[in-house]
Amino acid sequence: MDFGTLLGLVGGLLVLYLSIAGDGGSIKTFMNAHPVIVVFGGTTSVVLMKFGIKNFLGAFKTAGKAFFFKKYSHEEIIEEAVKIADAARKGGLLSLEGIEIKNEFMKKGIQLLIDGHEPEVMKKILTKEMNLTVERHMWGQKVFKAMGEAGPAMGMIGTLMGLVLMMSNMSDPKSIGPAMAIALLATFYGAVVANMLALPIAEKLELRSNEERLSKSLVIDALLGIQVGQNPRVIEEALKNYLPRNKRGSSVNDAA
Amino acid sequence: MDFGTLLGLVGGLLVLYLSIAGDGGSIKTFMNAHPVIVVFGGTTSVVLMKFGIKNFLGAFKTAGKAFFFKKYSHEEIIEEAVKIADAARKGGLLSLEGIEIKNEFMKKGIQLLIDGHEPEVMKKILTKEMNLTVERHMWGQKVFKAMGEAGPAMGMIGTLMGLVLMMSNMSDPKSIGPAMAIALLATFYGAVVANMLALPIAEKLELRSNEERLSKSLVIDALLGIQVGQNPRVIEEALKNYLPRNKRGSSVNDAA
Amino acid sequence: MDFGTLLGLVGGLLVLYLSIAGDGGSIKTFMNAHPVIVVFGGTTSVVLMKFGIKNFLGAFKTAGKAFFFKKYSHEEIIEEAVKIADAARKGGLLSLEGIEIKNEFMKKGIQLLIDGHEPEVMKKILTKEMNLTVERHMWGQKVFKAMGEAGPAMGMIGTLMGLVLMMSNMSDPKSIGPAMAIALLATFYGAVVANMLALPIAEKLELRSNEERLSKSLVIDALLGIQVGQNPRVIEEALKNYLPRNKRGSSVNDAA
Amino acid sequence: MDFGTLLGLVGGLLVLYLSIAGDGGSIKTFMNAHPVIVVFGGTTSVVLMKFGIKNFLGAFKTAGKAFFFKKYSHEEIIEEAVKIADAARKGGLLSLEGIEIKNEFMKKGIQLLIDGHEPEVMKKILTKEMNLTVERHMWGQKVFKAMGEAGPAMGMIGTLMGLVLMMSNMSDPKSIGPAMAIALLATFYGAVVANMLALPIAEKLELRSNEERLSKSLVIDALLGIQVGQNPRVIEEALKNYLPRNKRGSSVNDAA
Amino acid sequence: MDFGTLLGLVGGLLVLYLSIAGDGGSIKTFMNAHPVIVVFGGTTSVVLMKFGIKNFLGAFKTAGKAFFFKKYSHEEIIEEAVKIADAARKGGLLSLEGIEIKNEFMKKGIQLLIDGHEPEVMKKILTKEMNLTVERHMWGQKVFKAMGEAGPAMGMIGTLMGLVLMMSNMSDPKSIGPAMAIALLATFYGAVVANMLALPIAEKLELRSNEERLSKSLVIDALLGIQVGQNPRVIEEALKNYLPRNKRGSSVNDAA
Repeated sequence: MDFGTLLGLVGGLLVLYLSIAGDGGSIKTFMNAHPVIVVFGGTTSVVLMKFGIKNFLGAFKTAGKAFFFKKYSHEEIIEEAVKIADAARKGGLLSLEGIEIKNEFMKKGIQLLIDGHEPEVMKKILTKEMNLTVERHMWGQKVFKAMGEAGPAMGMIGTLMGLVLMMSNMSDPKSIGPAMAIALLATFYGAVVANMLALPIAEKLELRSNEERLSKSLVIDALLGIQVGQNPRVIEEALKNYLPRNKRGSSVNDAA
Repeated sequence: MDFGTLLGLVGGLLVLYLSIAGDGGSIKTFMNAHPVIVVFGGTTSVVLMKFGIKNFLGAFKTAGKAFFFKKYSHEEIIEEAVKIADAARKGGLLSLEGIEIKNEFMKKGIQLLIDGHEPEVMKKILTKEMNLTVERHMWGQKVFKAMGEAGPAMGMIGTLMGLVLMMSNMSDPKSIGPAMAIALLATFYGAVVANMLALPIAEKLELRSNEERLSKSLVIDALLGIQVGQNPRVIEEALKNYLPRNKRGSSVNDAA
Repeated sequence: MDFGTLLGLVGGLLVLYLSIAGDGGSIKTFMNAHPVIVVFGGTTSVVLMKFGIKNFLGAFKTAGKAFFFKKYSHEEIIEEAVKIADAARKGGLLSLEGIEIKNEFMKKGIQLLIDGHEPEVMKKILTKEMNLTVERHMWGQKVFKAMGEAGPAMGMIGTLMGLVLMMSNMSDPKSIGPAMAIALLATFYGAVVANMLALPIAEKLELRSNEERLSKSLVIDALLGIQVGQNPRVIEEALKNYLPRNKRGSSVNDAA
Repeated sequence: MDFGTLLGLVGGLLVLYLSIAGDGGSIKTFMNAHPVIVVFGGTTSVVLMKFGIKNFLGAFKTAGKAFFFKKYSHEEIIEEAVKIADAARKGGLLSLEGIEIKNEFMKKGIQLLIDGHEPEVMKKILTKEMNLTVERHMWGQKVFKAMGEAGPAMGMIGTLMGLVLMMSNMSDPKSIGPAMAIALLATFYGAVVANMLALPIAEKLELRSNEERLSKSLVIDALLGIQVGQNPRVIEEALKNYLPRNKRGSSVNDAA
Repeated sequence: MDFGTLLGLVGGLLVLYLSIAGDGGSIKTFMNAHPVIVVFGGTTSVVLMKFGIKNFLGAFKTAGKAFFFKKYSHEEIIEEAVKIADAARKGGLLSLEGIEIKNEFMKKGIQLLIDGHEPEVMKKILTKEMNLTVERHMWGQKVFKAMGEAGPAMGMIGTLMGLVLMMSNMSDPKSIGPAMAIALLATFYGAVVANMLALPIAEKLELRSNEERLSKSLVIDALLGIQVGQNPRVIEEALKNYLPRNKRGSSVNDAA
């Protein structure tokens, strides 16, 4: 799990809970079927109209994978690649059979090496898979951004519906306050869905997409070096030169 | 019919109905001539001013076609092309007369083949038709996006009109609530028209436009191969290489 | 007159009238000097500050010309060009003196031909005029877009002024409603000016600009062909090839 | 002084005055220290944070210069250049000493000519000065655009402050109206500052920047021609060819 | 410390204080746990979800450095470079050991010179460090811009929560005003955080980033000249030619 995302998600919910409880309010005031149906049902409907069922479900799968699958630092990838290159140099490519490899993408590539595929073929297969991942992330971003736009719009629609119903029947003055509270809940849910869930996830998927593209490129380059039996030290140097700018981009406190 | 769009459209209307009924409200509260005239009449007027009658009507025709015409998957197109290529190889181009072809665009192209047109001419005619389709979609998008902008604007104008009328005559306090309800209905309709109809359709047309362009390119390439009597296997391979990235783009769950 | 624009403009005003009358309201409620001065005077002031007097007045002139001057379809232009080319072939360029020509731009070009100008010179003069037209449209668009931004801003300013005045003196409760109605009128006028006038005109000018550029290019090409005595059939073919994509762009229902 | 800008500025203030007076209101209602401090002080603070003191003050200086300094039409510049070229042809460059030159930039360039600088050096010095002017305008635009964003934001902040203070102490119902009026004044001032001052000035500076760049380029080209003793007629022709498109861009009514 | 930023920051806070005190209000009215938790806690959560903990903390570190670290004018850098070049010319590179250098980046580079690194190596190391600084600023900008978006969104969410709680329990009319005041505080804090803190800092970081890139490039160029023993006058001239446009860009009042 991506720790920052988890912390932000849990922290956000906690903030909402605390500020309700801190006002002596009851969380039940915020549980109401009407706004929930309008905002969640409506947002889902709009996104379905725009992107279809497959892309809608796929976006959640992509987001789930992006947050729960293990992420390897570039250093870990380079280290593992050097270890494998060492083994291949000593015992040949076939000796890699059975070697323990943590990174799934590297494992797949090594299997292709052992199976004796040409460099061209291996590169093509792995690049295709890398592009598939990038495109999944791209579609995920599109869907979550669309949810980030549809959420507040459906919230406004829900609130307007509530206000229209309330105002067309104002015989009981005591019911006005609670009816208005329920109407406003739709705007509240719409704003929460967009700003605290959908848009941050879309942004996160964009960052993850760049990271994935880089770390998979790294693996592909390492495998091509291993295949032709390059010196592990040369591979290490080449990989480190390969990524400096991008790698540094993902961390901000290793510089003076 | 495009299933996701249908589901989203019906789902959206259902959501609106449920949340009105769920509040014990009557759907009649939302039926009122004033806001309907302002929002629907006004939006139509604005779009007519911007794009003229032909483009306005054309946009609905384009949207209708995009949603109701049968869509062929790239696999179906390749399969059909291979079948035809087989037949052409065995019996010559003339033997294709009378062969059953599901895809309309392929049918038209085959007829050009049978009529003995040069490859250059056939490619020109079919490319022209492909471009016409893309441009129809482009104009459709423009019109629906303009409706998505004009809808909320007219909604606001309608609500302001209602409020001005209400406030300039407040002698009967009991009429204030219902008058305000009617005024708010204009904003409600404007938001619904834009967010639950016009903008999703515009987005959908953009996706359909890309799909159409790709599948028509695919057919044109297949026909050029068939015309020169290429091996059906070669055609299949070429078509599959042709589209990988784009094809994958439209589906998100066929990758690890 | 551009029929769609006229229809949209009249339709929009009708919609406003109907929905006022439909509520049993009086159109007089919407006539008030205060908001009219703020919105129309203020919008004019802002646009003058931005673009100066010449460009401000020029924009209206450009819009007037764009809507009232006769527009020729590309087919009419090609037809007329072929007719003139026929005449020129039979009787020489000088025989074109006195020939009736509907299209003003073509007429001007033919006069240059008769006067014996070199092709280079004629092309330069006509291209310069074409660019002048395009630039007039561009400035017209800028001015109307600026009005579309300034209108709602001045409407808000007018409403705020009305509210401030009303709230600073609330001794007579009965005057609150009507005072607020007048304040809201400013927002109403600002929204109407922007959404039902200025922005649609700006959009229309953009479309007209593209059409003008294309049809004037067409005339220039025709004249160059006529000058060197090309076969009218060749000219027709060349002109038709010249514009297919663009021509189709302006109409959406001539395709399968 | 730029007449359109002056007219727009004075007209805008007049519009505000008239619509206050037209409602029988007193201009004193709009004079209040609280919103003035928040909007003007706050906007200044935000712009200072963004751009620093030098750029903030420089923007006003730039705007002042842009509006009050004499602007020369391209025709006047060409005319003056031709006159000088004539004089230089007859009496040599040195005879230009003491000649009366209206355009400041031209004057500076002529002095460089008389001092016997190389064409390269003169071009470098004058181009540098031209770029300095363009950059001053660019910074001026940035500052005024930032004011156009900060103004409404500070207006909202001021209104929120006023509302919070008002609502936390509502013991005297009679004070609610006036307190709310004062609160709304902040939004009013923010909207006026942004829409009727800062943004129009930013837009104007952009136009002026393009005009200045063009007219200074014109002067530089003229001086280079004068220095090598070109025929005044050739210089005139070259300058006219140089600018047609741009020149026309700044005026809209010299074309059919 | 960057003086303009400090002045703007202090000035902004003063403006808020004055306009509260100027209305006879108490600053305590604006101290309330509920909106503080929602806005500050919520904004932090959203930014953490988007960028993770490292980038979040790094942004504050970057902003702190940008505002508190000494900034050198380009003139100071050039002057110091010339002084060092003089010393190096007289006593050789080794004589630079122990020379007092104010600019940290220059100091680091001189040390590399003394250590006898090749020009290529030195340039690579220093360019890498320059890029690291630019990227830190870029991430800082991203984080502060995200705060500028999340702040108002969380403010709206907080206000909606307050309103919902208030309206669902309106038994005591006297509590309505103060409850609404507290609800509005969330919007107030969101607007203040975004407009008076986060967005100006993001903008400032962008300007600082450009300045840093330029002044570090300047140092690198100076060091390369010093290393090969160029004439200090030549170095000075080259550096001055190097930066004219950019340097002038950062100051607006040194031109006619």
